[in-house]
Amino acid sequence: MDPDTVAKAFVEHYYSTFDTNRAGLVGLYQDGSMLTFEGQKIQGAQNIAAKLTSLPFEQCKHSITTVDCQPSGPAGGMVVFVSGNLQLAGEQHPLKFSQVV
Amino acid sequence: MDPDTVAKAFVEHYYSTFDTNRAGLVGLYQDGSMLTFEGQKIQGAQNIAAKLTSLPFEQCKHSITTVDCQPSGPAGGMVVFVSGNLQLAGEQHPLKFSQVV
Repeated sequence: MDPDTVAKAFVEHYYSTFDTNRAGLVGLYQDGSMLTFEGQKIQGAQNIAAKLTSLPFEQCKHSITTVDCQPSGPAGGMVVFVSGNLQLAGEQHPLKFSQVV
Repeated sequence: MDPDTVAKAFVEHYYSTFDTNRAGLVGLYQDGSMLTFEGQKIQGAQNIAAKLTSLPFEQCKHSITTVDCQPSGPAGGMVVFVSGNLQLAGEQHPLKFSQVV
């Protein structure tokens, strides 16, 4: 599989998990993982999952607009830039979001 | 210097160079660097600088809103997420932009 296909599959899996089983995101992070969320740095899979499950909305639906991926670092890593819309239950207008994974 | 300070200094230097001497951005990329610009992948310092200097606007001014940085990969790298406004000469409203460096 080429890197773009891997990136798109991961992104689809990540946001599908976010929207349907947010606590399941814990399996997509490692102990060394870091999430920077609106300026706050959060380290480790458990802490990241705790942050994401405590966000002040319940039902949400991500719609992906762009997925850009490219190689990162000497160890075969990838950096993936995602943008799209985030529709929250009970809100009329979607929020714009962007995230690096 | 802590990583956040390094990231902010680099981001200020990058966009200041972009706005005042766009061709000078060539010095901030390496031969192995990749730019993904609106879905197009461009590799190498010379090709990246050629792309950025050929964008269809002359005068521009970036205003940075957020700079989030965190460690990336096993070799001491960093990933920096930047968002802000891009004001083009002759345009009434700024564009929103975001970039990973």
